[in-house]
Amino acid sequence: MSFQNPVFIPGPTNMPEVLRQACDMPTIDHRSPVFGKILHPCLDGVRRVLKSESAQIFIFPSTGTGGWETALTNTLSPGDGVLAARNGMFSHRWIDMCQRHGLDVTVVEAGWGEGIPADRYEAILRADGGQRIKAVLATHNETATGVRSDIAALRRALDAAKHPALLFVDGVSSIASMDFRFDEWGVDVAVTGSQKGFMLPAGLAIVGFSGKAMSAVETAGLPRTFFDLRDMARGYANNGYPYTPPVGLMNGLKLSLDMLLGEGLEEVYARHHRIAEGVRRAVAAWGLRPCAVSPDLYSDTVTAVRVPEGFDATRIVTVAAERYGMAFGVGLGEVAGKVFRIGHLGSLTDAMMLSGLGVAEMVMVDLGLPVRLGSGVAAAQEYYRHGAARQTEAAA
Amino acid sequence: MSFQNPVFIPGPTNMPEVLRQACDMPTIDHRSPVFGKILHPCLDGVRRVLKSESAQIFIFPSTGTGGWETALTNTLSPGDGVLAARNGMFSHRWIDMCQRHGLDVTVVEAGWGEGIPADRYEAILRADGGQRIKAVLATHNETATGVRSDIAALRRALDAAKHPALLFVDGVSSIASMDFRFDEWGVDVAVTGSQKGFMLPAGLAIVGFSGKAMSAVETAGLPRTFFDLRDMARGYANNGYPYTPPVGLMNGLKLSLDMLLGEGLEEVYARHHRIAEGVRRAVAAWGLRPCAVSPDLYSDTVTAVRVPEGFDATRIVTVAAERYGMAFGVGLGEVAGKVFRIGHLGSLTDAMMLSGLGVAEMVMVDLGLPVRLGSGVAAAQEYYRHGAARQTEAAA
Amino acid sequence: MSFQNPVFIPGPTNMPEVLRQACDMPTIDHRSPVFGKILHPCLDGVRRVLKSESAQIFIFPSTGTGGWETALTNTLSPGDGVLAARNGMFSHRWIDMCQRHGLDVTVVEAGWGEGIPADRYEAILRADGGQRIKAVLATHNETATGVRSDIAALRRALDAAKHPALLFVDGVSSIASMDFRFDEWGVDVAVTGSQKGFMLPAGLAIVGFSGKAMSAVETAGLPRTFFDLRDMARGYANNGYPYTPPVGLMNGLKLSLDMLLGEGLEEVYARHHRIAEGVRRAVAAWGLRPCAVSPDLYSDTVTAVRVPEGFDATRIVTVAAERYGMAFGVGLGEVAGKVFRIGHLGSLTDAMMLSGLGVAEMVMVDLGLPVRLGSGVAAAQEYYRHGAARQTEAAA
Amino acid sequence: MSFQNPVFIPGPTNMPEVLRQACDMPTIDHRSPVFGKILHPCLDGVRRVLKSESAQIFIFPSTGTGGWETALTNTLSPGDGVLAARNGMFSHRWIDMCQRHGLDVTVVEAGWGEGIPADRYEAILRADGGQRIKAVLATHNETATGVRSDIAALRRALDAAKHPALLFVDGVSSIASMDFRFDEWGVDVAVTGSQKGFMLPAGLAIVGFSGKAMSAVETAGLPRTFFDLRDMARGYANNGYPYTPPVGLMNGLKLSLDMLLGEGLEEVYARHHRIAEGVRRAVAAWGLRPCAVSPDLYSDTVTAVRVPEGFDATRIVTVAAERYGMAFGVGLGEVAGKVFRIGHLGSLTDAMMLSGLGVAEMVMVDLGLPVRLGSGVAAAQEYYRHGAARQTEAAA
Repeated sequence: MSFQNPVFIPGPTNMPEVLRQACDMPTIDHRSPVFGKILHPCLDGVRRVLKSESAQIFIFPSTGTGGWETALTNTLSPGDGVLAARNGMFSHRWIDMCQRHGLDVTVVEAGWGEGIPADRYEAILRADGGQRIKAVLATHNETATGVRSDIAALRRALDAAKHPALLFVDGVSSIASMDFRFDEWGVDVAVTGSQKGFMLPAGLAIVGFSGKAMSAVETAGLPRTFFDLRDMARGYANNGYPYTPPVGLMNGLKLSLDMLLGEGLEEVYARHHRIAEGVRRAVAAWGLRPCAVSPDLYSDTVTAVRVPEGFDATRIVTVAAERYGMAFGVGLGEVAGKVFRIGHLGSLTDAMMLSGLGVAEMVMVDLGLPVRLGSGVAAAQEYYRHGAARQTEAAA
Repeated sequence: MSFQNPVFIPGPTNMPEVLRQACDMPTIDHRSPVFGKILHPCLDGVRRVLKSESAQIFIFPSTGTGGWETALTNTLSPGDGVLAARNGMFSHRWIDMCQRHGLDVTVVEAGWGEGIPADRYEAILRADGGQRIKAVLATHNETATGVRSDIAALRRALDAAKHPALLFVDGVSSIASMDFRFDEWGVDVAVTGSQKGFMLPAGLAIVGFSGKAMSAVETAGLPRTFFDLRDMARGYANNGYPYTPPVGLMNGLKLSLDMLLGEGLEEVYARHHRIAEGVRRAVAAWGLRPCAVSPDLYSDTVTAVRVPEGFDATRIVTVAAERYGMAFGVGLGEVAGKVFRIGHLGSLTDAMMLSGLGVAEMVMVDLGLPVRLGSGVAAAQEYYRHGAARQTEAAA
Repeated sequence: MSFQNPVFIPGPTNMPEVLRQACDMPTIDHRSPVFGKILHPCLDGVRRVLKSESAQIFIFPSTGTGGWETALTNTLSPGDGVLAARNGMFSHRWIDMCQRHGLDVTVVEAGWGEGIPADRYEAILRADGGQRIKAVLATHNETATGVRSDIAALRRALDAAKHPALLFVDGVSSIASMDFRFDEWGVDVAVTGSQKGFMLPAGLAIVGFSGKAMSAVETAGLPRTFFDLRDMARGYANNGYPYTPPVGLMNGLKLSLDMLLGEGLEEVYARHHRIAEGVRRAVAAWGLRPCAVSPDLYSDTVTAVRVPEGFDATRIVTVAAERYGMAFGVGLGEVAGKVFRIGHLGSLTDAMMLSGLGVAEMVMVDLGLPVRLGSGVAAAQEYYRHGAARQTEAAA
Repeated sequence: MSFQNPVFIPGPTNMPEVLRQACDMPTIDHRSPVFGKILHPCLDGVRRVLKSESAQIFIFPSTGTGGWETALTNTLSPGDGVLAARNGMFSHRWIDMCQRHGLDVTVVEAGWGEGIPADRYEAILRADGGQRIKAVLATHNETATGVRSDIAALRRALDAAKHPALLFVDGVSSIASMDFRFDEWGVDVAVTGSQKGFMLPAGLAIVGFSGKAMSAVETAGLPRTFFDLRDMARGYANNGYPYTPPVGLMNGLKLSLDMLLGEGLEEVYARHHRIAEGVRRAVAAWGLRPCAVSPDLYSDTVTAVRVPEGFDATRIVTVAAERYGMAFGVGLGEVAGKVFRIGHLGSLTDAMMLSGLGVAEMVMVDLGLPVRLGSGVAAAQEYYRHGAARQTEAAA
């Protein structure tokens, strides 16, 4: 492993210098007013990144998984019905969490590489006359397969079914990198973490709750203390936390939000799209294809690349790390060995991405795959070149 | 607030430069073998700091509160009996958590300033013929009052009562600063965090489980996923985590453990004792007394100082922060306004402590308390001078 | 030596976090426009700190000693006459440099503890009918003795003598900490470094040249290349350097200037005066006195404390370092063993200063000096307390 | 300009994390014994990197240019003869310095792209019966042209001519990156800086003096103080400096030396050679050629790439910076506009180099040069792939 090369795992991402410095903060008294000047800009900024006017934001010293648990335990009671699709490892894990918390999950099985089927959601919701289903779960971006699902379509499904269930969206690997519209899509709970689009170390679970979701907090019967929003909300009202907050990480988040909002969310999304599209051009030039089964599902934060039948994709990741000191992601669960993953979110430049594509090519050639050196790089260069040119013209 | 002055809150502590640098790590692939070289030294080192041969150690991206929840949810089932004393804010909060998780808590009320009454624990346990009580809770060091309780005495109480309950110890503000003996005291679950004796930022919940406590994990009926030891143990077996680990913080913990074990635990405890005793000498010179009602209860990590009747101790903390840029701790709960707290744990020197005492004196004089400038400092100087002299001789 | 305690040497000073972070910069292309955005704010800011409208500022990767050499070699020719006073180690060294560069130095010997005698300067200048003397040297603040000389008085002496010599001022330990008026005092060359009032690591020689001094550059006969202002000026005109600039340090200087000018120079001076006066109160309470022979000479950046006859002051510094991990300055040259020095410039708070005074007391008591523990601290506390109170009122 | 992309200027280089952290040191007392523990390992380590048993090493807070001035002023007197070749900008600047210091330089003009002609040196030295020439200057690696000259050949020339002149070698961009043999080649003064092979920020001039060169120090008539080796040597004998040393940078140098010597100098050279050879393969694939006129002259630290006649090479550097945020070096002096330079020294990986080559290609295509995207990258990949494979086999 090299500390010199960028990483191309789908998070934690490469971190900008200034964010690392903002996190590396000396100890302050977290009960002093100084802390409030870190906390509130974080809450406000996250709300803006979610594109919400009124979502209540909560930040826990935890990870995205803790964010999921926050969503479930603050709104549901044992035995409550939940509707969820399984189309990858992370949607699978969320279903597993529901089951371990005693929820009754209706699982919609989808192919690993497919999106969440809004039509099947709608059918199930229509059939749920007793409104046993209290929450509908959606993994916006399946990090395991590089599939982005259509959340607006799920909202339409809920509305068409006239079903009052809450809509929970895992935006861990989408929020702050790809378009996300909390209010417009009628999201009730959004979950993310610090180590993806926010380009920070892991350690923060970040959630947004709609007013409707907040109403469920008082009646939710699942036990929780660490993740209890009521304690957290009381803390925030006094500029504090119910326990010791992760001050440095939050100071980093404050600056990350300034950077993202300063760049402009649409520009952030466009940047991710440009880098991602370059990767996809390279994949095509290699004669390979993404795990995502159709272009409308392509994720702009991670591409899971299918390798030829019979070849173990994990070897690519291993050789890249051992021989070239570069980190890619292995396939997980059903697509283990069948895909390797190229993370392309967070703090990246076209130039950095070329180094990742260049190494991937070397490894594939090393392992005997029928890939021509420079082919994917050239495809990405051609695309990036025009993207860069357009940028320059726009700026002129 | 000043970033130049040391802090004298009872955690998070002042951080050594090298630990801050170890935490400020570029992104690595947490699924690569590099991570195992951080993880396992952390687990081994924590075990040694606990003075245990066989405790299983788990480290969560969370805080001490999350450590408590880990202890409860991994060993207990709804309705289980728990025995706990309330002698300060942190023991109170733990009791509250038990109740919110549906446990049946027998609360032993003790004075805020008193230790945990082992005799009353023993009586209650003897009376629990049906062994309804599954866990006995003890806050080793009540951070709110500066009271260290006698855990060995609680073990003797359990043994005398021949009661099989698990012994859970909150060592958040004692472990790595004051003597702690997991094996010798028969502790079943020990809980601590990164931001106290380990001198790191907040963000890690660190727990140790005895074999007996591990046996309870399989049958524990409380729901949990984020804090589930089973997932964590499976992860560790593969050098990984069930979710994204806080790599930088753990890298800091690895170095912190090297530093603490390199210095020697007894030396670390002696250092904390020396600095604490200087503070107590100063408090006496001011004509004040600790909240802890007897010397055997004095904490070596925090001193809660009682102020004269009718004076609002919180003003001391406010003026210290606003006028002198120095952070002390306010009184909490029952002792709010009655005490202010001087934290003296973690990365401190005698010289740094003198600045804290000096500012406390200035504030008290500013606020009209009958304290003579220089009096407490002189008492601490006299004590530290001899401690330092002895050190030099020992080293010669 | 401890990395935890502040240092009380008269430079390098304690460094604010943000300045350290600004210096710790990744590599940039120093020939790119980015560098100009660091360079020019540095030049402008230094000019403002010097209180000059028109001084030309130059910054070398060097130290104050290099700044002296810059002053001499860019303005003088072998054999030129120079007038200088020797009243401490640093004025001595500058004289030595002149002699080694073949200049003809008229040395005014003054007591170590006295200021520069303006009247003797005036007499010598009046007697120099042939205007053999080309430059008059003055060490504004003798760091070895803690003596601040009156530069305005030297300008009056030059003017009274109607002598055209250039006035060179060593402001290494005064500029950015004590009042300095380049234009008003008619200074021709001012010399300083990064590691004192600017609170940065050592590594920058910073000089300001008047128009008159710049006129001398073309005709100066002393050889120089590294320190040649002509190359440097050509570089600046192109946003660059004649060699590789110390980019990170200059980035730190840029921020330091923002901090100093943001705080306000008069406020910076008042802060230094307040902390220094507290130290002097402590010295008096110890029954000792400064090396500076009269209060008008007292430096606000360093106090050289005279110890009782027969006592070796160096032992104080040694014991402070070895036993308490705290750094003070030893006496140099004629006052070696007779004084120890307390630096009180740069990034300091009242609280930090108390820790320095507290340790100094402990050491003096350890070594048998008739000092009472807490006495100096109390005197400083009393003074700081009122200073702080006034500050608060002013802010209200 | 991007802080995310690596730089490809021929120094300052990309810096490893650990070196940046080692430089970012809190203030210590540079007169304390702690400093000696930084200083002496630096001196010893540099000597080993120079491959010398007995060279005396000196480290100044300055740059390579200051190192040159150190070499000249400590050994020569006004009017002394010096023999030097001009084959690029840096050798030109050294000649200029000699002239400005009143030395009598015999200049051997060589093509920019050619090496130092040992035969012409020999002829001139043979003809110098009066031994008027006191020093022979050689720029080991001309950073402006990417030409490495043969220092051993120059030594043979001196020996063949039986000439006693000192041999001064500018190793600024070769030492610690390419083979350098102080003792074997009979070098008398070697000059380098911190910001090239040592992978540190600019700010240190590092020189090695042979015993013969040291003998010249006492009689050298050029004035100097800041760069005077006599003061420096006296300082080192007392673990100190004649002025404030750049402690943090030297702490970084200490670690850099540990890293370089730990890796092994031959391995360091091989690494530089491998990366450089990949660059040269890319250049050939682009249909271009290095400025260096023959392969024996190729530098392993920088490649100056000749562009087609009539094309302004500076545009490549400008567009790379403005459009892609990547830094290359422009041509200087006689080759301005004719070459652009790719720095490939210091902290680099094959993967990082691919990103530099990839961007260079994009820029050349953007500017209409007949280069095929991916062509140079592919050539480098092919070479690196085999280099990496060989490494792995060697390690197995």
